[in-house]
Amino acid sequence: MAYCIFCDILSGKAPASFIYRDDLVAAFMDIQPVNLGHVLVVPVRHAPYMEDVTDEEAGFMMRLAHRTTAALRASTLQCEGVNYFLADGEAAMQEVFHAHLHVFPRFRGDGFGLRFSEQYYTRRPPRPELDHQAAELRALLSPGP
Amino acid sequence: MAYCIFCDILSGKAPASFIYRDDLVAAFMDIQPVNLGHVLVVPVRHAPYMEDVTDEEAGFMMRLAHRTTAALRASTLQCEGVNYFLADGEAAMQEVFHAHLHVFPRFRGDGFGLRFSEQYYTRRPPRPELDHQAAELRALLSPGP
Repeated sequence: MAYCIFCDILSGKAPASFIYRDDLVAAFMDIQPVNLGHVLVVPVRHAPYMEDVTDEEAGFMMRLAHRTTAALRASTLQCEGVNYFLADGEAAMQEVFHAHLHVFPRFRGDGFGLRFSEQYYTRRPPRPELDHQAAELRALLSPGP
Repeated sequence: MAYCIFCDILSGKAPASFIYRDDLVAAFMDIQPVNLGHVLVVPVRHAPYMEDVTDEEAGFMMRLAHRTTAALRASTLQCEGVNYFLADGEAAMQEVFHAHLHVFPRFRGDGFGLRFSEQYYTRRPPRPELDHQAAELRALLSPGP
């Protein structure tokens, strides 16, 4: 297995500031925060991509993110809002190949934002195109929950 | 209650292209996609902010996002990676006040990206500061899971 900084953190070989850990998921402070209070939520098991994460782990990652959001909002950290961000794959800007969900506080004028393509502002797919995409995804969706 | 376009969609009063729906969560195509195949995952119940979403709903939103990711990757849509994004609160760029998780395909050169503050590139909080933040969040975290 390739070297994984998050596995080193989870096994205690590398330092981290944990806010939570159980058998399935954990959360610790990001060392390069978008804003102070930036937390990373991870599965404890090494899972490079979302395809390696189980449905159960994904669900518990989000439950932990959700509880973290309430803690951020109740904290003394500057928190007027919260963003979640997850990158699955290099093309989606994933940099550490152990799945992780970013949870970070936001405040007005903090300088964070999204960049969109030109197309984003003008492209409005007609309903039949959206229906077609939905039909394809519906057929490919594994049975849930 | 204020007008909610997602509630209109979920009650069938407004059109949408659904890929999934059960009693708890649903997913349909975003009409202003970052890239084609952009899906919104929502709780069926009206919940403006994450504080109005239950842990269970949050978990099932992510489980559905996770299954949607596999469908996007298996689809004919241009998908080399996937991003999840959630905005909780105006300061975090929330625009529709019914909680929703964005799940969208990414491909190299698609023009989407993140903007960071100047501080992001230089600020590295010393470990005692991260430990202090973690201790505060840990104390505020509701018991899980």
